[in-house]
Amino acid sequence: MKREASGRAVLLRPRADAADEVQVDLGPLTDGIGYMLRRAQLASFKNFQQVFGPVGITPAQYSVLLIIELNPGLRQTQVSDALGIKRANFVGLIDVLEKRGLAQRIPAVDRRSYALHLTEQGRKFLKPLRELNDAHEAQLAAALGKDGRAALVSALTAIASMETVSGPATDDDA
Amino acid sequence: MKREASGRAVLLRPRADAADEVQVDLGPLTDGIGYMLRRAQLASFKNFQQVFGPVGITPAQYSVLLIIELNPGLRQTQVSDALGIKRANFVGLIDVLEKRGLAQRIPAVDRRSYALHLTEQGRKFLKPLRELNDAHEAQLAAALGKDGRAALVSALTAIASMETVSGPATDDDA
Repeated sequence: MKREASGRAVLLRPRADAADEVQVDLGPLTDGIGYMLRRAQLASFKNFQQVFGPVGITPAQYSVLLIIELNPGLRQTQVSDALGIKRANFVGLIDVLEKRGLAQRIPAVDRRSYALHLTEQGRKFLKPLRELNDAHEAQLAAALGKDGRAALVSALTAIASMETVSGPATDDDA
Repeated sequence: MKREASGRAVLLRPRADAADEVQVDLGPLTDGIGYMLRRAQLASFKNFQQVFGPVGITPAQYSVLLIIELNPGLRQTQVSDALGIKRANFVGLIDVLEKRGLAQRIPAVDRRSYALHLTEQGRKFLKPLRELNDAHEAQLAAALGKDGRAALVSALTAIASMETVSGPATDDDA
């Protein structure tokens, strides 16, 4: 993204088809918190995928594995709620982790729900991923100036904690 | 989100089912840029929906209307690329705006693509939305301290502009 002399931001997209190269006036969007949160989140997601490469897991799958390891035995809804993942999407996500032999659903005492656990393979799989995630976070931090990391996390936490009428946000809302 | 004396963050989710109330240890996630970007983005999205209420448009639809007004005649791929919206999702998004009589597709000169324009109704519809978006942005800014807004937008822009091997991020990557 570049800024013109006018201060208005434009996004240049070099493409194979030269006719598609065009300067698009994004107007006030690039000075808005809402729009830039989304763009930054997409860039972060892309960086995560590049760093994790052939491991082939998504940020959501990584967070679920981490939370199951830290809180073994939680019910599915407890994990999806804590992470802000839509319940409807969460079942498919666990299916994938179960098929890869990383996590397992064990019927809960009340038999109406499932408790989540990592498998032994899942624990081994997760261990080196922490270093990959550290590398991903370091690359994000490197894009910010000195002290920029702590200030950004603090600002994001303030927004994530905003009081809303109907409780914390999940991707049910997205 | 609260922080325990240990400094570890927990998320409390009050629910109708009291048995679901549980403190989940989110470990290092809540101190990570990647995870907190997503949580902040979800909270921002939710706030947008609350402020826009019965208008019933999404942040993506709003950004598309704004960009078409600022750049009339752009092709669909040019708008989706500039906004980082997955091309496959973009067609459905334009369908919705066209059905509501807000935007229209006009065959481009080369007849192989469509140029996007707002309708007269679309221009009238968009005008008051700028104020709603200002209110949404003001609520996000209010969650931050003094000077917090400019610093956050600057940090998000730095991350959104990160160099990646395969070009800028779009939600093709999400």
